[in-house]
Amino acid sequence: MVGGGQLARMTYQAAIAPGIAMRVLAAAPDESAARICGDVHLGDHRSLDDLRAFADGCDVVTFDHEHVPQEHLRALEADGVLVRPGPDALLHAQDKLAMRERLSGMGVPCPAYAKIGDAAEVTAFAERHGWPVVLKAVRGGYDGKGVWVVRDATEAAEVCAQAATAGLTLIAEAHVAFEREIAVLVARSPYKQGAAYPVVETVQQDGICVEVLAPAPGLDPDVAAEAQRLALEIAAELGVVGLLAVEMFDTGDGVLINELAMRPHNSGHWTIEGARTSQFEQHLRAVVNLPLGATRLTAPYVVMANVLGGEDPHVYDRYVHVMAADPGLRVHMYGKAVRPGRKIGHVTVLGDDLPGLRARARDAADYLRWGTI
Amino acid sequence: MVGGGQLARMTYQAAIAPGIAMRVLAAAPDESAARICGDVHLGDHRSLDDLRAFADGCDVVTFDHEHVPQEHLRALEADGVLVRPGPDALLHAQDKLAMRERLSGMGVPCPAYAKIGDAAEVTAFAERHGWPVVLKAVRGGYDGKGVWVVRDATEAAEVCAQAATAGLTLIAEAHVAFEREIAVLVARSPYKQGAAYPVVETVQQDGICVEVLAPAPGLDPDVAAEAQRLALEIAAELGVVGLLAVEMFDTGDGVLINELAMRPHNSGHWTIEGARTSQFEQHLRAVVNLPLGATRLTAPYVVMANVLGGEDPHVYDRYVHVMAADPGLRVHMYGKAVRPGRKIGHVTVLGDDLPGLRARARDAADYLRWGTI
Repeated sequence: MVGGGQLARMTYQAAIAPGIAMRVLAAAPDESAARICGDVHLGDHRSLDDLRAFADGCDVVTFDHEHVPQEHLRALEADGVLVRPGPDALLHAQDKLAMRERLSGMGVPCPAYAKIGDAAEVTAFAERHGWPVVLKAVRGGYDGKGVWVVRDATEAAEVCAQAATAGLTLIAEAHVAFEREIAVLVARSPYKQGAAYPVVETVQQDGICVEVLAPAPGLDPDVAAEAQRLALEIAAELGVVGLLAVEMFDTGDGVLINELAMRPHNSGHWTIEGARTSQFEQHLRAVVNLPLGATRLTAPYVVMANVLGGEDPHVYDRYVHVMAADPGLRVHMYGKAVRPGRKIGHVTVLGDDLPGLRARARDAADYLRWGTI
Repeated sequence: MVGGGQLARMTYQAAIAPGIAMRVLAAAPDESAARICGDVHLGDHRSLDDLRAFADGCDVVTFDHEHVPQEHLRALEADGVLVRPGPDALLHAQDKLAMRERLSGMGVPCPAYAKIGDAAEVTAFAERHGWPVVLKAVRGGYDGKGVWVVRDATEAAEVCAQAATAGLTLIAEAHVAFEREIAVLVARSPYKQGAAYPVVETVQQDGICVEVLAPAPGLDPDVAAEAQRLALEIAAELGVVGLLAVEMFDTGDGVLINELAMRPHNSGHWTIEGARTSQFEQHLRAVVNLPLGATRLTAPYVVMANVLGGEDPHVYDRYVHVMAADPGLRVHMYGKAVRPGRKIGHVTVLGDDLPGLRARARDAADYLRWGTI
C-alpha cells in the first residue's frame, strides 16, 4: 500500500487475520502506518524510482491516498505491476473535473458544475445557479482544503487570484441546499463481485468529518437502495477494483453525488467493529482477488466520532480517563503527533440507543481533543 | 511480549488500535508473530542475555507462553524490569504441582492429586481414587503433550519409565467423569480491577481444543457465576496481572479446576469478534495499566473452531473457497507452515442459531484442514 497514514495503519491491522503480507511505502519512519508495519519502505510517492523499488516483490499495489501521479501509475503498469485500482479508475478520484464529466455522462445526479478560467466565469455561473457558489481545486484537496464557498463576485475574485498564484485549476459547483450528507461504501473485485455497506450519515464541521452514524437514521429505504445502486453502478462503470466511497447530499428529494474516493475512507471506520467485514479487510480482499465479505451491521446502530488534535499534545494521558469512564468504548489512536484540527484517532460505540451512543462518542472525542482546535 | 507464536501475533494486532507500541521476542524470523510485527528481536527465551537485550527499552514485559525460567524472571525483576505477570504468579502456570498445592490450600475444588516418585505410587493412588489415573508432567506440557491417561499398573510403569528417562517429574490426578469442559477467562490489572468473560464450553479432541462455544450452552447461571467467582479469586490470590485462563471440568454437580494459563488463551480467541474487548487487548490493557474493557458478548452465540494442519500444505488455495461459501465467516490464519495436527488458524462465526453456527465453523475448519491429521 502506497501511503503511510492511518488508512494504511488500519489496513495493515486488517491484513494480519487473513494472513495477507503487506508492505507500506511511507515518507518517514514516524508516519502512522510506518510505526507498526513489519515491512516498511521509505520513499516518496511522487518518485517513480521509489515506487518501482517499493513495488518490486509485490503481487499487487494499492493506495491509502490518491496522490500518485497518473504517469507513474501507467509506468508501473507498463512494468507489469498490478495496480488496483488502476489509473483509468483512479483518475476520477484525483481529478474533480474528470469525475464530474464522467458521472454527468453516465446520467448520475450531480450538482451543476463548470470549469472556471477566471472570476468572471464564476459570476456567469452564479447568474445561472445563484450565490453562493462552491469553488473547488480540481486536484489535491482534502478535509475541506481546496474548497471555498464564495458569496459574491468579490469573494470569487479573491479565491480565483489565490488559485492562479498557486497554479490551481478550479471548478464551480452549485451550492446544494441539502438536508444532510450521506456516504455509501462499496467494494468491487477483479471478478466483478460487488458489495455495498449500509448507507451512513456523515456530520461535517468546517469541512472535516466529525461523526458518522450507521445506518443513516430515518433514511427512506428507497433512497438508501438507490444510493447503494448508484455507488455500485459508478464502481462498475469506472472499473474500480477495491473500495469506492461515494459521498452524497441527501436533498430530501433524492441524492446528488458530492465526492469519490477509491480507498478505505473515514466514513467507513465504523465498520471495524460495526460490520461483519471491516472496510480495510474488504479493500484487501478485493485487491488481492479474494471473495468479498459480508457487509451487514453487527449492532442496530454504530456511531464513530473522529478525535481531532487540540491544544494539549498529551492525548495519551487523557485516554486512560475515557477508557475508565466508558469500558465499552472502542478507542483507535493513530500514533500521530497532535496538531490542532488534525485527525489523530477515532472512537466507536455500538448499541440500540442512538442518542445515547452519539453522546458517548462525542463526549469521548471532545475529552480526548481537550480545548479548542 | 516474549514468544513469537500466534498469541503474540494476535496481541500485536490488538495493540495497534489503542496505540500501544509492542516488541516481540521471537526465536526465528518466520515465526507467526515475527512475520507481521514491526519491532522483532530474535533470541532465545531461555537465554538471560537475550531476555535482557529484549527488555531494554520496554516499559513492561509479558509473555505468550510460560516457558521463561523462573530464575530469569527474577533476574529481570532484579534489573528493574517490570514483569507482568510476575514470577510468583507465573509459577502456578509453569508448575502443575505448585498450582495444585496452592489451589488446594485456598480450598478451591480440584481433582485429587499426588506427586509421583515411581509406578508403585501410581498404583497406590489408584487404590484410593480408582483407575484410570491421569499422569501429567509437572512442567512443559501443552495441547495434550505431557499428559497420559493410564488404565492399569502396566501402563503406569511404562509412562513412569519414559518420564524418568526424559527427566520429567510427574503428578497423578484422579480421572474426572466430567460432563463437559468449560473455561473462564478473567483479567486483573495492577490496580486490582478484575473483569470476567462469559463462561465458555471447550470441545477437545486428542487433548487439543477444536471448538469453543460462547457462552457455554445451557450452563446453570449459578454454576457460571461460581466459575467466574473462582477464576477471579484465583487471579487475586495468585497476584496475576494480565489474563488468567482457568480450564475447568463441569461435573454436573459443580466445577473442578483443571489447568491455568496466564496469557491470551485458545479458549478466548472468540473474543476478537465476539466480545466488546478482545482478550488480546484486555491483556495489553492490564499489563500496561489501562482500565479494563467491557467483556460482554456482541452476539447471542459465538463459535470458534481451530484450523489444524492436514496432509496438504496449500491451505491458502482452499481458503478462497471457504470465504466464497460463507461471506460472514471470520478467518484467522497464523502464517505458520502446515504440519499435521498443528494449530495454523481459526475461524469464528456469530449469530442466534447455535447448531447452525457450529456446522458453519466445523465445515470451514474441516475444509481448511483437508484430509486426516
